[in-house]
Amino acid sequence: MKKHIRLITPITTKGSWRSEHLEALEASGCEISVTEIDAGPASIECEFDEMLAAPDTVAKIIAAERERVDAVVMDCMGDPGLRAAREAVEIPVLGPCETSMHLAAMLGHRFSLVTVLQRLRPFFENRARQYGVYEKLASVRSIETPVLDLESSAEATAHALTEQAILAVEGDRADVILLGCTGLLGCAERVRGTLVGKGYDIPVIDPLPVTVRIAAAIAGVGLSHSKLTYPTPPEKPTIGFSQPELSRR
Amino acid sequence: MKKHIRLITPITTKGSWRSEHLEALEASGCEISVTEIDAGPASIECEFDEMLAAPDTVAKIIAAERERVDAVVMDCMGDPGLRAAREAVEIPVLGPCETSMHLAAMLGHRFSLVTVLQRLRPFFENRARQYGVYEKLASVRSIETPVLDLESSAEATAHALTEQAILAVEGDRADVILLGCTGLLGCAERVRGTLVGKGYDIPVIDPLPVTVRIAAAIAGVGLSHSKLTYPTPPEKPTIGFSQPELSRR
Amino acid sequence: MKKHIRLITPITTKGSWRSEHLEALEASGCEISVTEIDAGPASIECEFDEMLAAPDTVAKIIAAERERVDAVVMDCMGDPGLRAAREAVEIPVLGPCETSMHLAAMLGHRFSLVTVLQRLRPFFENRARQYGVYEKLASVRSIETPVLDLESSAEATAHALTEQAILAVEGDRADVILLGCTGLLGCAERVRGTLVGKGYDIPVIDPLPVTVRIAAAIAGVGLSHSKLTYPTPPEKPTIGFSQPELSRR
Amino acid sequence: MKKHIRLITPITTKGSWRSEHLEALEASGCEISVTEIDAGPASIECEFDEMLAAPDTVAKIIAAERERVDAVVMDCMGDPGLRAAREAVEIPVLGPCETSMHLAAMLGHRFSLVTVLQRLRPFFENRARQYGVYEKLASVRSIETPVLDLESSAEATAHALTEQAILAVEGDRADVILLGCTGLLGCAERVRGTLVGKGYDIPVIDPLPVTVRIAAAIAGVGLSHSKLTYPTPPEKPTIGFSQPELSRR
Amino acid sequence: MKKHIRLITPITTKGSWRSEHLEALEASGCEISVTEIDAGPASIECEFDEMLAAPDTVAKIIAAERERVDAVVMDCMGDPGLRAAREAVEIPVLGPCETSMHLAAMLGHRFSLVTVLQRLRPFFENRARQYGVYEKLASVRSIETPVLDLESSAEATAHALTEQAILAVEGDRADVILLGCTGLLGCAERVRGTLVGKGYDIPVIDPLPVTVRIAAAIAGVGLSHSKLTYPTPPEKPTIGFSQPELSRR
Amino acid sequence: MKKHIRLITPITTKGSWRSEHLEALEASGCEISVTEIDAGPASIECEFDEMLAAPDTVAKIIAAERERVDAVVMDCMGDPGLRAAREAVEIPVLGPCETSMHLAAMLGHRFSLVTVLQRLRPFFENRARQYGVYEKLASVRSIETPVLDLESSAEATAHALTEQAILAVEGDRADVILLGCTGLLGCAERVRGTLVGKGYDIPVIDPLPVTVRIAAAIAGVGLSHSKLTYPTPPEKPTIGFSQPELSRR
Repeated sequence: MKKHIRLITPITTKGSWRSEHLEALEASGCEISVTEIDAGPASIECEFDEMLAAPDTVAKIIAAERERVDAVVMDCMGDPGLRAAREAVEIPVLGPCETSMHLAAMLGHRFSLVTVLQRLRPFFENRARQYGVYEKLASVRSIETPVLDLESSAEATAHALTEQAILAVEGDRADVILLGCTGLLGCAERVRGTLVGKGYDIPVIDPLPVTVRIAAAIAGVGLSHSKLTYPTPPEKPTIGFSQPELSRR
Repeated sequence: MKKHIRLITPITTKGSWRSEHLEALEASGCEISVTEIDAGPASIECEFDEMLAAPDTVAKIIAAERERVDAVVMDCMGDPGLRAAREAVEIPVLGPCETSMHLAAMLGHRFSLVTVLQRLRPFFENRARQYGVYEKLASVRSIETPVLDLESSAEATAHALTEQAILAVEGDRADVILLGCTGLLGCAERVRGTLVGKGYDIPVIDPLPVTVRIAAAIAGVGLSHSKLTYPTPPEKPTIGFSQPELSRR
Repeated sequence: MKKHIRLITPITTKGSWRSEHLEALEASGCEISVTEIDAGPASIECEFDEMLAAPDTVAKIIAAERERVDAVVMDCMGDPGLRAAREAVEIPVLGPCETSMHLAAMLGHRFSLVTVLQRLRPFFENRARQYGVYEKLASVRSIETPVLDLESSAEATAHALTEQAILAVEGDRADVILLGCTGLLGCAERVRGTLVGKGYDIPVIDPLPVTVRIAAAIAGVGLSHSKLTYPTPPEKPTIGFSQPELSRR
Repeated sequence: MKKHIRLITPITTKGSWRSEHLEALEASGCEISVTEIDAGPASIECEFDEMLAAPDTVAKIIAAERERVDAVVMDCMGDPGLRAAREAVEIPVLGPCETSMHLAAMLGHRFSLVTVLQRLRPFFENRARQYGVYEKLASVRSIETPVLDLESSAEATAHALTEQAILAVEGDRADVILLGCTGLLGCAERVRGTLVGKGYDIPVIDPLPVTVRIAAAIAGVGLSHSKLTYPTPPEKPTIGFSQPELSRR
Repeated sequence: MKKHIRLITPITTKGSWRSEHLEALEASGCEISVTEIDAGPASIECEFDEMLAAPDTVAKIIAAERERVDAVVMDCMGDPGLRAAREAVEIPVLGPCETSMHLAAMLGHRFSLVTVLQRLRPFFENRARQYGVYEKLASVRSIETPVLDLESSAEATAHALTEQAILAVEGDRADVILLGCTGLLGCAERVRGTLVGKGYDIPVIDPLPVTVRIAAAIAGVGLSHSKLTYPTPPEKPTIGFSQPELSRR
Repeated sequence: MKKHIRLITPITTKGSWRSEHLEALEASGCEISVTEIDAGPASIECEFDEMLAAPDTVAKIIAAERERVDAVVMDCMGDPGLRAAREAVEIPVLGPCETSMHLAAMLGHRFSLVTVLQRLRPFFENRARQYGVYEKLASVRSIETPVLDLESSAEATAHALTEQAILAVEGDRADVILLGCTGLLGCAERVRGTLVGKGYDIPVIDPLPVTVRIAAAIAGVGLSHSKLTYPTPPEKPTIGFSQPELSRR
């Protein structure tokens, strides 16, 4: 009865997952497999990058359904190609942005998302609006660090995140902090530690692990997205993309 | 590492859980215990009932935290006393209304909630507004059956739910159906079967089982509600209620 | 033709009314009577307190209807049990929070509510959303003084209120100030005096007296709340509460 | 201590007030005087009419303040010149549209406004949005009768209002009915009678009498509109209008 | 095929147009004529002024339609009488406030409007709400200079505008600047120059020229406003205004 | 001074433009050139198609900027890749969906969009929300005709559009009709003719021609989108796409 979750990293470099992260998740009772894409950008930091990442991400999700995985989770807070992917498959496809924004909305009055670059503020505000949780968004803040520099400057990253989280609480009246990039995996505990030390006992959400678990929960009860919202794409000639064939019932 | 979830039935009659439901949930990897309240109404069908159910529900949640359960889930779509309970404890407390409304918002463009009595429409619309997902709510519909009659008329209940679900899809343009009473436990599959037969391949959410699993997911990653939104109540004399003492750090 | 207004103080200590306040109101042409509750908290400062205050508040409102008073006003900005009370009776029941928020919305572009404790900010923001006036709310500010300390530190209270009112005008662009606790009765004039002295000729609303007069106005023209929104609760067994019997027609 | 309320009928024909209406209001403890305008349209049924009615309405309000009345109420659901009037004077100026929309929002979950002409729907929806109560508006309905025909067809008017009120309840899920023209004075009781007979025990608001009483309540506690929202107009040359001089402090 | 646009300056002093402005617009392929009003205020700086400006503005628009111009543009960010004018005529009538707010909404995530006087903030926020673009409005800022002083202090005006524009970008997170008075004609280039020099490459909208061009575009494709929203006013006696007769089909 | 507008048809089949359409637009004073994409779908009817159309559409827009055209207009109501394109270039890029939704919002109280397939309803509702005009959207309706069948069934298409437009006016209270697919080019006149015949004198917007003219108006006054909202993408390795190099200053 173990659910098999496929994690898709929608960039052409390696995601931020380490084997210990996967083991921790598998310990919770699901099986995890990981795929990266073959065509697309090295990292996703703007709408342009997301546009180039989406086609192969969706191709990998179609392939995952054929391999009979139970659910797919994207390893990127941009949720690239989420709506197209849901049109293309019937298994649950979860984006960490949509999932963790809803979770953040549940855990407190308003949440702030702390991400890598200030240029993503309009992007995340639009996402919150589309996902229906805009009224729960206190602010979008950033640490001004490019995605591919996050790992090499882990110490500085954690420090900057904490600084922005405190400003979010004190200046924007955030009640919950949501880390706004899956490349920040593993930083939540440290940010929360400092916040609690300052008297702010609030959740700091690391979006990817909890999205994987919620994907397992959804697959576990047999739910998936609505095919009225996401009907299968009509068949038609397409030039220049070799998308796997869609299953049509 | 198994998480222990306490299910609180906030009425003075038995909840709708059968042993097979609990076994199915425990098979997903958590431990479940169930408590009913000692003081309160026989069922919850209006604001007045909810008001009377809340104090002992919260008392039972405080007791659950002392017994070191990992998370609490209320067995009622009214989420009675949810905010007061979160003030009183630090472990995650999930209401099926809040949790399943957010889930419904994630699975499709708009959802309809089908509940027992039409008089609850303002109640659920207010809940959706407070939970921040009002824009995703297509409609609230009802089958006009009192809670305590649901079981004795299981056949009629399922039939009426399906009828309202079809009206929600065709008339209100719902993309997702959310069953609006935990007493409807077990009806989702049948409603969905008929919808799929009519060409509407959409999720029908049975709120309680998925809320239990999401509670386990949240507890599993060490998250809980924000104590900035839900700070511990100040100590003060109270007459006429024997609430357990709150833990104060 | 004088209307009889019952003032319900929903705490087990005395409300902030002095005989001169009552006399001033009676001079406006209505009769006032006052009741406190027997079971509940000593003051209301959080959702937990409000939950414990509601059942006996509603019981006292049911009793007031039986005694043929013309309308009821709650003496607490939490409006505890307002919706349950309206289900239970047919005479107008007014909460000062709902009433004065609508009044504040009428008197200027946006209003700020200045209350006793910062922890009540999410509470009042949720109230404004539920009452339908959220877009008119500029901010919720607080003086960080527990309710039961207000009287002993009247000087400090007035000073702190004025300070927050100025910040609301200059920082949050409030056009109207609403005092956010009925325990602040009598402070409005002084706050307004200082504001006018600084060139801010704006209303400062003391919520309770104006709510009493609006209750008399509503009762005077024969209006009350909608029984479609607030239908009488269904009869059912209840354990542990001795609510007066509801009138059922 | 009696408050003197000036009723301004912003049209060049007589308002719908009869002496018995005024006597009923005066019995509630205030003094009423009535003025019509000298320049403007015979009735107000569109934005064009309202534009022509506003300048002399405001002139009459400035004159009323000079005559030391305590508050002004407009006798028209268009609230013509309301904002300009509030800039021009310091005494409370109440429009029945703003006041009764807020009252309707307080008495139930959502209200419908039933007015004279369908062409006014965008007008009233815009008013509700500007007044901050749009979310509480269920619908705008009309009886398609020109204002100046209302009196001559009183029977037909009441019948048509009742018909639309029933459609509002059954079709638009209104919980409260608001009569959308002050020329409908006196019809509320009859409409409500029929609604109650059909099992819909809901308020039907006759906007003018309750606005007069609320004006008296506001003046009685010494409140008025915010001069930050409505500052006195700057002095400047104006051609073609003989507005009374404004009081400038 | 050249379109003839009539520019109506709704004040009794001269507008801010110079012949070089008109020539520049005519070079774009339309014919421009200009009219001022005969009755009304010397400038528009509040709701009171706007009320006095509207009747003759609309009279001039009715006259323009009779003279067979193709479209009318108001030379005032107050859009005085816009809705009444659209009721009265069938040719397109564009207000620079409505038109440039929609344009600003299209060019970036959120815009700030920088106007002459702080007292106009509620006015413009209400306009944005009525025009349906409130969510795109970052802030309303002002330079605190009366309209009739703008020209004599052109240097100071440009400096103050730039200062407020920078505060809008850095403090309110505006992505687009909209000049909030047509008397600021010609200042946009200079404000943008300084912004670009500081690294903010954003549009600064001078509302009038672009509104004229969009009016020509709309007239060019044969569109106009909806007569369902703006039906012709009913005929009726009116005292004190000599409005031109409306064309009635 | 003629502005050169590049029309990009984001599909791999020919757009719906005929030479007479281009000539009509050029007669208005601009120069038009047209490009189709080389990689992508044959038509755009869902999120999946749009995803595949975007990368080459953006590549063609980058190329257009290099060829020094003055502005770009997409020939598709999906506005595919609009945000990515604006990041990539500095000349104005207009999508007909965003532009004509704002225009529709200006011309009447609420508009309905009539498109080809019902499955696009969530898509267009999300677009309206993101563009900030959701409150002006009355409904999305469809004629259930695939894009590539539109031309072969021109008669049936016009008939079905008219039918849906009437339902939008009578059932959804639309004041303006917006044709929701650029493949419907040329149908507006006929739909409007029938509507006027039924007494509904309302605008029917053919989105593409007016978007081209508004693009010329915007380019004509030297405006473009905000580079704070749409900053140039960071340089990074990308696999599988040969996007033209971006201009970086």
